[in-house]
Amino acid sequence: MNVDFHLFGRSGQARRGVLRTAHGVVQTPSFMPVGTQGTVKALTPAHLRQLRAQMILANTYHLYLRPGTEVIEAAGGLHRLMAWDGPILTDSGGFQVFSLAPLRKIEEEGVEFQSHIDGSRHFLTPEKVIEIQAVLGSDVRMVLDECPPPDKPKAYLERSVERTTRWAERSLAAHRRQLEAGRPAGLLFGIVQGGVYPDLRQKSLDGLLGLDFPGYAIGGLSVGEKRGAYEEALAFTAPRLPEDRPRYLMGVGTPKDFLLAVAQGIDLFDCVMPTRAARNGAVFTAQGRVPIKRAEFKFDFGPIDESCDCYTCRHFSRAYLRHLFVAKEILGAVLATIHNVRFFLRFMEMIRRSIEEDRFEALIGRYRAWFESPGQEDEEPDG
Amino acid sequence: MNVDFHLFGRSGQARRGVLRTAHGVVQTPSFMPVGTQGTVKALTPAHLRQLRAQMILANTYHLYLRPGTEVIEAAGGLHRLMAWDGPILTDSGGFQVFSLAPLRKIEEEGVEFQSHIDGSRHFLTPEKVIEIQAVLGSDVRMVLDECPPPDKPKAYLERSVERTTRWAERSLAAHRRQLEAGRPAGLLFGIVQGGVYPDLRQKSLDGLLGLDFPGYAIGGLSVGEKRGAYEEALAFTAPRLPEDRPRYLMGVGTPKDFLLAVAQGIDLFDCVMPTRAARNGAVFTAQGRVPIKRAEFKFDFGPIDESCDCYTCRHFSRAYLRHLFVAKEILGAVLATIHNVRFFLRFMEMIRRSIEEDRFEALIGRYRAWFESPGQEDEEPDG
Repeated sequence: MNVDFHLFGRSGQARRGVLRTAHGVVQTPSFMPVGTQGTVKALTPAHLRQLRAQMILANTYHLYLRPGTEVIEAAGGLHRLMAWDGPILTDSGGFQVFSLAPLRKIEEEGVEFQSHIDGSRHFLTPEKVIEIQAVLGSDVRMVLDECPPPDKPKAYLERSVERTTRWAERSLAAHRRQLEAGRPAGLLFGIVQGGVYPDLRQKSLDGLLGLDFPGYAIGGLSVGEKRGAYEEALAFTAPRLPEDRPRYLMGVGTPKDFLLAVAQGIDLFDCVMPTRAARNGAVFTAQGRVPIKRAEFKFDFGPIDESCDCYTCRHFSRAYLRHLFVAKEILGAVLATIHNVRFFLRFMEMIRRSIEEDRFEALIGRYRAWFESPGQEDEEPDG
Repeated sequence: MNVDFHLFGRSGQARRGVLRTAHGVVQTPSFMPVGTQGTVKALTPAHLRQLRAQMILANTYHLYLRPGTEVIEAAGGLHRLMAWDGPILTDSGGFQVFSLAPLRKIEEEGVEFQSHIDGSRHFLTPEKVIEIQAVLGSDVRMVLDECPPPDKPKAYLERSVERTTRWAERSLAAHRRQLEAGRPAGLLFGIVQGGVYPDLRQKSLDGLLGLDFPGYAIGGLSVGEKRGAYEEALAFTAPRLPEDRPRYLMGVGTPKDFLLAVAQGIDLFDCVMPTRAARNGAVFTAQGRVPIKRAEFKFDFGPIDESCDCYTCRHFSRAYLRHLFVAKEILGAVLATIHNVRFFLRFMEMIRRSIEEDRFEALIGRYRAWFESPGQEDEEPDG
């Protein structure tokens, strides 16, 4: 299938590209701020523009349950509803159905689950998930996949990969019917599963690559498996994806993770970390992640990050941010989110420049300390 | 004492003026958004500028306790700390000491109280409150006053008025010493107390007017007394304030209250209502206050208010706002606050124009329905 994706730079395996969508271009590698419920938490679309966000992510499962597909359809699509006219990628909800929703029951036809909001029962099929995303009108859409926890027996994972492949085929057929019917259709991405097992990853790749998706995601990583297993599975899978298609590593991760994954040829990322950490009062700096409520910042009138060009760093001090969080003021979450999202986007801008100038390895070298102190970037629990 | 306040328009008793401060002019009548803890809740200073806020209010009691006077002093003042370069009025904390702080003990020298945050003990005197506001660097400052609840016996209120007058005299002396020492000094306002009793209001006026403050506030109204008593006390007090000084009605109120009080010659207002209501999901429209979570808005894709020029109304629908509040998204509070504050500021702009064009009475007539349905504008509890 066609995808308007052009690679124009390389540095080692790192790729510099541009993905064109109906709502604008995405310079890759790119970080997508997460707007699960149709809002990147605490930010206005005007903020997102100022931060130079490109594509943002929204979640089909969440939006299907609330405000509901019929509301978004009546609004004229998700872009209109949330007043974001840039590109949107929608996750299929596979991950959410298999991690959030209680009492799920997987059948060949689809998956039955209870809403995490009100316990109401729902049945999602691959076709229905494609239909919902067509209503949302997202620019990049994901197939419904099963994302099993990493501690499942291998035999289970194998059956799951086979079913996910069959679901991918049904998704693509449903997507093609929409294209043929003339409905505005985004790019449909397949999702490679298979846990930490090379043979299962290969099995998933074999099934999906034959279907010729416009883009491919790597799913089921960074979901609780060991760090070494994560890195091995990524290193196995990424280079086996087709060269000419965008590659999206789902739900990953930290700036350190970006360096590692871009080095494997990944183009797209999303992660709740910068927005979630911000609401918890943790801000990102070149020295890592810093809890802004620390007493040491009480009289610190410097910005969060001297080198940052965001609204927060240009106007406000660590002391003020600390005050806002200690006093539980909403503005604290807003200003910290502005900074953290900009930090992630700026980090990716730096990665893109380094690839353009073929000095990506040197960039990794500059951040070597990060790789020698594991855990620095680990996520804190939600709070 | 000098005050750079010029009246240049009248319509009945309503006054159109301009107050010059070290951080810019305030066109009166004016509504001041409330930034109790050094932030107008949920808004950035950039938002406040876009909303065309003029003077904002901050609270001496809250800022003294948190982040603490020494932090604000080290920051170079409150304007620098919160990155707001427009005018700031600071309330003295009298109201908070007498309503929030437990275990207060009033003596002639000052008032002892426990922090509502951590129970720590503090002693504030009129002089200390002037000193703290000098550190904050606010443009308009308030004397420490006692704000007794309306159900206190009249004999108590009388003694309280006498003490508040003596405190006002000490405050003014402390303020003059700062002026003489060359410290940048804002305008110090006296506060008329006396509850709902005309003779006590007169006693308070007699004491304060002799002290020649640059401006006068009416305190102790809208603190739980009956509506009729409120209106009588306002009608008694406002016309007895000096013509050539700005008049500030503290903590009031609704758009309806603005009309009534401007008609009595009031120039300045502050109220937490627009910001607090916004966080509770209540938005202001020409039809009154509307809970945006109502089911009827699920498919309502019009703006909160067709006539509103705010960022929220220009970009987002009632359906989206409803979704944000139902999903408990921070952006809901941000967007509703933008609208409500702009609604209040725009209402005051309309009042100013009507005075300039000497048709303020006609404006009141236009909103007559409000005066025939009491309770419409009543405040909801914090939530």
